[in-house]
Amino acid sequence: MSTGATVSARGPGRRPGSPDTRAAILAAARELFAHRGFSGTTVRAIAGQAGVDPALVHHYFGTKNDLFVAALELPVDPRQVLAPILAQGADGAGERLLRAFLSVWEDPDARLALLGVVRGFLEPDGHRLLTEGFLPTVLVPAGVALGIDEPERRMPLVASQIIGLIMTRYVVEVPAIVAMSADDVVATYAPLVQHFLTDPLP
Amino acid sequence: MSTGATVSARGPGRRPGSPDTRAAILAAARELFAHRGFSGTTVRAIAGQAGVDPALVHHYFGTKNDLFVAALELPVDPRQVLAPILAQGADGAGERLLRAFLSVWEDPDARLALLGVVRGFLEPDGHRLLTEGFLPTVLVPAGVALGIDEPERRMPLVASQIIGLIMTRYVVEVPAIVAMSADDVVATYAPLVQHFLTDPLP
Repeated sequence: MSTGATVSARGPGRRPGSPDTRAAILAAARELFAHRGFSGTTVRAIAGQAGVDPALVHHYFGTKNDLFVAALELPVDPRQVLAPILAQGADGAGERLLRAFLSVWEDPDARLALLGVVRGFLEPDGHRLLTEGFLPTVLVPAGVALGIDEPERRMPLVASQIIGLIMTRYVVEVPAIVAMSADDVVATYAPLVQHFLTDPLP
Repeated sequence: MSTGATVSARGPGRRPGSPDTRAAILAAARELFAHRGFSGTTVRAIAGQAGVDPALVHHYFGTKNDLFVAALELPVDPRQVLAPILAQGADGAGERLLRAFLSVWEDPDARLALLGVVRGFLEPDGHRLLTEGFLPTVLVPAGVALGIDEPERRMPLVASQIIGLIMTRYVVEVPAIVAMSADDVVATYAPLVQHFLTDPLP
C-alpha cells in the first residue's frame, strides 16, 4: 500500500512510518528471539536494536506475542486459523485441527514459507522460537481455549504428532507418507491427536 | 588395532588393507548415498570414487546395505539392536521398540552421534539417506520380520511417531517432552506405535 512513499536518505530502519522501520523492527525481533528466546527478549531491546522508540514497535505490531508471530513471517497467523476450530470445543478437535493444518500446508506457496520457518527452528538457538515462542503463545493457549485439562502437557504431545507428520510428509518426504491423500492423513492421525487432547494419559 | 601400521606415501585411500582405504570407502559412500540416494549408488561407483577395487568394498563392508549402515556412522547397528525385539513378534512390539530406541538415545555419547545423523538427514539430498536407505534397509525389513501386514505402509507411520519424538525431545527440546522420564515416554507413546503396527488402519 505504501510502496510508493518517498524514502529519505537517512538510512534503513531509522525513519518512523516508513516500510524500512517496519522491516528493521522485524529483523531485530527475529535476531533477538532466535538468540535470546521469547522470554529473554523485551520490546525495549528490539526497539533499541532497530533504532526506534518502543512505542513505535507497539504501534506497528501490537503486543510482544503479536510481534513474535509476525517475526516468524508465517504465511498465515496461526491464531486466526485456530480460532474457529477452538470455538467448537475439544470434541472432534483432533480432526478439525488436522484439517486446518493441512489446508495451510498443502498450499504450495504457504508450504514453501513454512519450510523456511521449520529450517529456522533447526538452526542453532532457532528452536527457542518454538519452545519459548510458538508453544507458549499459540499452542498452549489453544489447549486452554479448548478447555482440556493439562494443556501444558497435552499440547506438546500434540505438537510431537504434528512435527512427526511435517518432517515425514514435507521435509524428509517419506514416499508412503507423501502418497497419502489429505483425507487419509486426517483419518490416520486424527485419532492419535484426539487421544493426546482428551484421553486419559499415563 | 592397526594404527601402528606403517603408512606408505602413495596417498590416502589407495593402499589396500590400510585404515585409509576403509576411510576413503566410507567417505565415498557417504557422499554418493547423500547425492544419488541408496538406489542410485552402486558399489562399483563407490569403489571408483575411493580409488579401490569393488571386491575390496565387499571385503571391508559386506553388502551395499551393510555399507550404507556403516556410512551412517551410527553408534550402534540398528539391525543388531532390533533383532531380539523382532524375534518376539508383533505383540507388545511397540513398547519393546520404544525401550530399545530410548536405550540408545538416552546415552549421551550415542545421542550426540545420532543428532549428527539427524542433521545430515535435513541437509539438501540428505533425506534420501532416510527414504532410500534407512527406511528400506532397516525399518521396512523390521516390519517384515515382525510379520505385520502392510509393512511398507505401517513402518513409515511408526517412523513419523519416532521422528516426532526425536525432534521434540532431542532436537528442539520441548521442555514438557524433555521432562518426561524414559518410562513416561514408553507409557505415553507405546500405545500409538503399537496402533500403527497392528491395529486396523483407515
